Amino acid sequence: MREHGGNLDLAQQRFGGRAEDWIDLSTGINRLPYPVGEVSARAWSALPSRAEIEALHLAARHAYRTSAPMIALGGAQAAIQLLPQLAAAGRARILAPTYNEYAGVLSAAGWDVQEVAQLDALVGADLAIVVNPNNPDGRSFAPKDLLALLPLVGRLVIDESFADAVPQLSLAPEADQQGLLVLRSFGKFYGLAGLRLGFAIGNAADIGKLAALSGPWPVSGPAIAIGSRALRDDAWAEATSARLADDCDRLDEMARAQRWTLVGGASLFRLYETQDACAAQEKLARCQIWSRVFAQKPTWLRLGLPGSEAEWTRLGEVLAR
Amino acid sequence: MREHGGNLDLAQQRFGGRAEDWIDLSTGINRLPYPVGEVSARAWSALPSRAEIEALHLAARHAYRTSAPMIALGGAQAAIQLLPQLAAAGRARILAPTYNEYAGVLSAAGWDVQEVAQLDALVGADLAIVVNPNNPDGRSFAPKDLLALLPLVGRLVIDESFADAVPQLSLAPEADQQGLLVLRSFGKFYGLAGLRLGFAIGNAADIGKLAALSGPWPVSGPAIAIGSRALRDDAWAEATSARLADDCDRLDEMARAQRWTLVGGASLFRLYETQDACAAQEKLARCQIWSRVFAQKPTWLRLGLPGSEAEWTRLGEVLAR
Repeated sequence: MREHGGNLDLAQQRFGGRAEDWIDLSTGINRLPYPVGEVSARAWSALPSRAEIEALHLAARHAYRTSAPMIALGGAQAAIQLLPQLAAAGRARILAPTYNEYAGVLSAAGWDVQEVAQLDALVGADLAIVVNPNNPDGRSFAPKDLLALLPLVGRLVIDESFADAVPQLSLAPEADQQGLLVLRSFGKFYGLAGLRLGFAIGNAADIGKLAALSGPWPVSGPAIAIGSRALRDDAWAEATSARLADDCDRLDEMARAQRWTLVGGASLFRLYETQDACAAQEKLARCQIWSRVFAQKPTWLRLGLPGSEAEWTRLGEVLAR
Repeated sequence: MREHGGNLDLAQQRFGGRAEDWIDLSTGINRLPYPVGEVSARAWSALPSRAEIEALHLAARHAYRTSAPMIALGGAQAAIQLLPQLAAAGRARILAPTYNEYAGVLSAAGWDVQEVAQLDALVGADLAIVVNPNNPDGRSFAPKDLLALLPLVGRLVIDESFADAVPQLSLAPEADQQGLLVLRSFGKFYGLAGLRLGFAIGNAADIGKLAALSGPWPVSGPAIAIGSRALRDDAWAEATSARLADDCDRLDEMARAQRWTLVGGASLFRLYETQDACAAQEKLARCQIWSRVFAQKPTWLRLGLPGSEAEWTRLGEVLAR
């Protein structure tokens, strides 16, 4: 398995403790999740109906401000797994550094994969991948610059897993354009990654192919029920966006006191340049706070945002040592 | 979308009522589900860890009496969706009539698909599919007859979605043999189809391929938590098998009073030969009991088993009219 955040079992193996003892800041998952509430017996027991899945799509169209065709899948990851089947293998170019599953999945499927550093180096690719805003460095791109790229590549995939708090960056409203495919994650912003829910939004032909590849029941009844409710809850989304903005400032300030420099970040994570990221990770981990380091970048430390005030206090105390 | 049971929205469109008013006997899903219980905050929020997924696999190995490699997926259906990628397209032979997703998925992926009526007509296929016991007619095959077929086909897929109550039929214990792949459904016997959980059990090479194709988080946190508990609950499984056997007898007796003849069945459904299945379906549907008919077989009516005593009473009253 490729290196990922959220690998808390590795943290436990190395530093002990039960899962519930840890504050897992190794991912960009909101630690104050949308309230799950009561899940109906039908959601657990019955096969999801077409009507229920369509209601979820409508809620997602509302949240993502689009009328484009879409399909709910088991997380943005499930869409990534299907990408190699949308077209015959060719040249894939990925704006990097970024989420490593793109290169991994496409290489395994026989694509010629190259990671590039600049947007214009994507030109000419059969498949171009941009994560916007990008994970882990928070680099972001204006919709008009991405749309300018669209006629110059075979297919342009925009991964908007961290775009919930920055709707002005989203290409979801334009996603039905030929050659464009937008991926959204539900679990990160709504803090329910275990639910496995995400969306692919695009033109009817691509979404039809993805629907055929993923079968009649690609997401669970609880995911449909909870997602349909959450994606219509504008008040929660607005309050959460505002809270995350404040929390980013708060974490950046704590980092400055450590003499860590902000490389960049999105609303759910911050990437810091440190003296020695492994040492910083170990210091935090001895107090059961898990973080993300990168084998290729020994000074980079990525931190998600603490949730409760108790978590902020614990992080502050550990850093003050 | 292909014709399936569990299409309650179609029933509602034609005959009215809310989903919760209906007794859905159009599927083979146990209507007295395993108790979901409390789902932890971590199961909803965190990405499932390797350790949690491995614990689920261990529970499934216990329930399915096997030590073979396996992977948990979003239902047996998710495994079916991946079948075309296990090998280059070739000749697929399917023991029919059976679950129509096999022919649909393989045809769409460019396989030459032929449905055959007898086990020995599968010989020579690159991919042979047998559902055991079979849906909808309950036909079943001895493990030794299936193992005899194994060297005579490229790959043999045995779908054991309805085998929970007949472990003596299961090839799960032998599933690591070259060329064999066994699929199991969690949601039917445990009555939690909305959870989307199933397993592919086979040799290390096939399971490794399926794992790579399905990515790091193919099933949800709640599915892992509930599945891990349910699959270790031998007492519940034994009591449920015994109850289902009694219930099959009870339904068969009600059917005899209608002069319906039993074509066959498994522990979660019965298939009856009627005068006119559409008329029977309509009679039941007017009282909000949904059943399964088959376009190709106008006399076949498939019924799942009612759950509560109130459901049995309602079915009895409707049939007595």
